[in-house]
Amino acid sequence: MEDSIANLIDTYHELNAAVVEELDEEPSPLGFMRYVARNQPFVVRRAAKHWTAVRKWNADYLSRTMEDEAVKVVVTPRGNADAVVEQGDGSQAFVEPHETFEPFKRFLEDVRSSSQMFGKAGSNVKYAQTQNDNLRNEYETLYAGVPKDIPFARIALGAGADAINLWLGDDRSVTSLHKDNYENIYVQIRGQKHFVLLPPVEMPCINEQLLPKGRYVPCETTGDLEVQLDDEAEPVPVALWDPDMPDKLTTPYSYLAKPLRVTLREGDMLYLPSLWYHKVSQSVGDEGFVCAVNYWYDMDFSGHFWASNNFVRDVVNSEKMKPAYPELETDGQT
Amino acid sequence: MEDSIANLIDTYHELNAAVVEELDEEPSPLGFMRYVARNQPFVVRRAAKHWTAVRKWNADYLSRTMEDEAVKVVVTPRGNADAVVEQGDGSQAFVEPHETFEPFKRFLEDVRSSSQMFGKAGSNVKYAQTQNDNLRNEYETLYAGVPKDIPFARIALGAGADAINLWLGDDRSVTSLHKDNYENIYVQIRGQKHFVLLPPVEMPCINEQLLPKGRYVPCETTGDLEVQLDDEAEPVPVALWDPDMPDKLTTPYSYLAKPLRVTLREGDMLYLPSLWYHKVSQSVGDEGFVCAVNYWYDMDFSGHFWASNNFVRDVVNSEKMKPAYPELETDGQT
Repeated sequence: MEDSIANLIDTYHELNAAVVEELDEEPSPLGFMRYVARNQPFVVRRAAKHWTAVRKWNADYLSRTMEDEAVKVVVTPRGNADAVVEQGDGSQAFVEPHETFEPFKRFLEDVRSSSQMFGKAGSNVKYAQTQNDNLRNEYETLYAGVPKDIPFARIALGAGADAINLWLGDDRSVTSLHKDNYENIYVQIRGQKHFVLLPPVEMPCINEQLLPKGRYVPCETTGDLEVQLDDEAEPVPVALWDPDMPDKLTTPYSYLAKPLRVTLREGDMLYLPSLWYHKVSQSVGDEGFVCAVNYWYDMDFSGHFWASNNFVRDVVNSEKMKPAYPELETDGQT
Repeated sequence: MEDSIANLIDTYHELNAAVVEELDEEPSPLGFMRYVARNQPFVVRRAAKHWTAVRKWNADYLSRTMEDEAVKVVVTPRGNADAVVEQGDGSQAFVEPHETFEPFKRFLEDVRSSSQMFGKAGSNVKYAQTQNDNLRNEYETLYAGVPKDIPFARIALGAGADAINLWLGDDRSVTSLHKDNYENIYVQIRGQKHFVLLPPVEMPCINEQLLPKGRYVPCETTGDLEVQLDDEAEPVPVALWDPDMPDKLTTPYSYLAKPLRVTLREGDMLYLPSLWYHKVSQSVGDEGFVCAVNYWYDMDFSGHFWASNNFVRDVVNSEKMKPAYPELETDGQT
């Protein structure tokens, strides 16, 4: 069975180059559909260079537009929203960030000053990353700065974006390895994002474990963020393997992974296909903040794709639960 | 492990209706690419009704056009080309047909008269089914009667047909369950074809076994076709389960299969996606023969599709090779 799983990953790599293809221009709807069919990422450098957002969204413009509008901000001690945190007793938990609302201008000022204080103790990390279609809701006044939709994706997939999200933070936030059930068009506005990508077929490499769920909560006396476990919540499956620390927390298959790496600069567009694992870190732009926009389109659960990926997970998990049988003796009597 | 395989097939069926979709008209290239991405078949009724072939190919027209041109014909005792044949000792072999060249007119006359002699002893079954791009080679004079290519498929897949094949025979030929590594556009010209279709994910249902290879060869004295095994040839993987005899030669998963059935009538077009298992039987038209044309396009081996299907086969086969371990006793000491 181990050989079947290793063979799956090897076969995939024999048939697919471990690089993110770079296109000269946005694909046609048909061209895009071919990438969706293959579940293969690509980058279009400077695809969004004419967008108002890329041309105009500096700190002053954003502050003048959003003013003191209240926006949802997540807060963590180390930029680790939705990440594994080791508890005092050595156990691990999947911890969600503290959430708060702040006037936009103050939030942006905090972000800009804190990115320069990188490494200083006592400064929590703030990130606007609600992923709930925020650009058509709390950031609606900024929505005019980006296309209403991505035409090649809308036409190819036969439906508009399910959510359009704005991401704004500093260089201390890291999104740990996870996957989304969406076809994702990701566009860098300010600063850079550094993506590490793994195809769905590398699920056996990422060391998925069920962890208890927790949340950062400010201590009533000190105000420091502390992990509060949620004993009621179902445990959640979390990737423990980190492609940037490939020798730690491995599975027997981690060494077979071939992570793809791509950095998005201002105006670059990435197609991040559904169910690809991604870890994302970031670098601030000239004005000390990072900003990106992404368009999420519903993935197609029909056909074989979802069922096949489910099967890989099932085989990996049933393999883990098997007792280690002793070797049978074949002495001629069996 | 058995549960993983059953779960794969069940999940697929939960997400995919077990019917062949009927479209009102040929899809656009983009529309077609969506079906290719989902690996989902469809039928377009009467899509080819304006084709010269559908309008004009009667026995007289075909004979006048092809005249005494030599064409390759396969001959079997029971219409069983490329099929499992039980040997005298009860063992099974995968047997290819006897191949011969005949003047077209005589071949067509044989086909037309033999379809009426159905069941009569001593009449071998002839079928023109070379699948080697014959319509652009030995049947070249007929090629003008069909489109040079299928535009929506050529544009979507970014390449012309790899092979265009003519199929001509009587109602005694049956193509047993198998799959092809091609995207297939199949068009009925005369008579009917009755397809039974299984998605690739049902590989665990079809009871694939490695069988020795043989060929029908005419006996030097009687002329009767007899099976001659090829001891040099590698054994070939063959589907033993027959969806029309669902209780025989089963695997533990055969009962989970949901075969799709569709009959193509004159002028109908079927998209038969790559790697789908298909069994095909046929009914003759008014003039006592069956004729169809198909366009084979190269499938895409990149992405996850090929690798995933390979994995299913690997898991099924490694499961079969496992010794049946005794239940471990858990008496507290182990």
